[in-house]
Amino acid sequence: MRLKNVRGAKKIIDNSSYVIQNPSAYKGNFKSLFGNNNPIHLEIGMGKGQFIIEMAKLFPEINFIGVEMYDSVLVRAVQKLETQELSNLRLLKFDATNIKDIFNREIDVLYLNFSDPWPKNRHEDRRLTSLKFLKRYDIIFKDKKNIIQKTDNRKLFEFSLKSFTDYGYKIVELSLNLHQDKNFNVETEYERRFSEKGFPIYMVEVIK
Amino acid sequence: MRLKNVRGAKKIIDNSSYVIQNPSAYKGNFKSLFGNNNPIHLEIGMGKGQFIIEMAKLFPEINFIGVEMYDSVLVRAVQKLETQELSNLRLLKFDATNIKDIFNREIDVLYLNFSDPWPKNRHEDRRLTSLKFLKRYDIIFKDKKNIIQKTDNRKLFEFSLKSFTDYGYKIVELSLNLHQDKNFNVETEYERRFSEKGFPIYMVEVIK
Repeated sequence: MRLKNVRGAKKIIDNSSYVIQNPSAYKGNFKSLFGNNNPIHLEIGMGKGQFIIEMAKLFPEINFIGVEMYDSVLVRAVQKLETQELSNLRLLKFDATNIKDIFNREIDVLYLNFSDPWPKNRHEDRRLTSLKFLKRYDIIFKDKKNIIQKTDNRKLFEFSLKSFTDYGYKIVELSLNLHQDKNFNVETEYERRFSEKGFPIYMVEVIK
Repeated sequence: MRLKNVRGAKKIIDNSSYVIQNPSAYKGNFKSLFGNNNPIHLEIGMGKGQFIIEMAKLFPEINFIGVEMYDSVLVRAVQKLETQELSNLRLLKFDATNIKDIFNREIDVLYLNFSDPWPKNRHEDRRLTSLKFLKRYDIIFKDKKNIIQKTDNRKLFEFSLKSFTDYGYKIVELSLNLHQDKNFNVETEYERRFSEKGFPIYMVEVIK
């Protein structure tokens, strides 16, 4: 995603009740943020938030947490939420490499939507589906590990399938052309623009 | 593949030194057919044989066995071989549902090229990558189980990936557009015609 500097982004973010300022303080106890025991679904790299905001509206019985590292993108999600009351949604700002410091056995489902493909081999470890990241995720899941990935990037998708199965995940759902299959699907901003051009969207759900 | 009745097919097949008439007699001892201990690679559903004949020429240090159920197709492979001397290739005619009666711990690699997709749900068990077939293959492999599949059929490929990982196979190689990747690739007849029309060829290699 192209990053633009957004004037006043930090202030807007700091003032939003959706954004949790000190996420590590909730480690192992994120349910206290929501005041219930509902399942918690996490999106890493939520971008401008279209997916997770829509999911939170559609599924009030599930709690959603969106993670984004960049102020200039996170602020767009915050702005979308200014006029909305969603008690089952919270946003966090941190770098996913530190995820083990934030969550402890409390996540039910992890969404990875249109993550940065990091195409160069030497950047393989930075891909959110690298073995390095899969190992980091182990501790965040409450029980069964469940990851759902969508991407338009063929090479990232091929890499992910190898990585998932190498680490013992099994494929429970898979589409090599999600929009043609017309399954239930909540789109991201990026996804809509991309699929409108006729490119296939890949999706896989894995469990361990 | 469309099946045409070929006049005299049975006689041509019976007279070919490439075709093993009583395959179950060699169960557990197929290496005696080749007179060496080289690895044995098997193709189920070899059709008219272009892939396996080309592979046998390229890799003289590997023994190849092609299996085909239909006389009218097998005869085309036999005819191609009439003027060729390939000591590392043999052809068998049997129905793959009986594969456990034919091989016993002696296959190194299994190729499944452009298998019948059996698109109806009620025919799922007939797909060569169904759990039923994966179980049948277990006993044929010498050591590590290694399957390489190519197909142009998206739904069969999606099904296969789920089935493989469900049965404990790991993905070691994968392409969602084999011809664009320009890796080493020996084509089947069907594959050439299909990819020339611009459709992607899917490939996966799995091990267990």
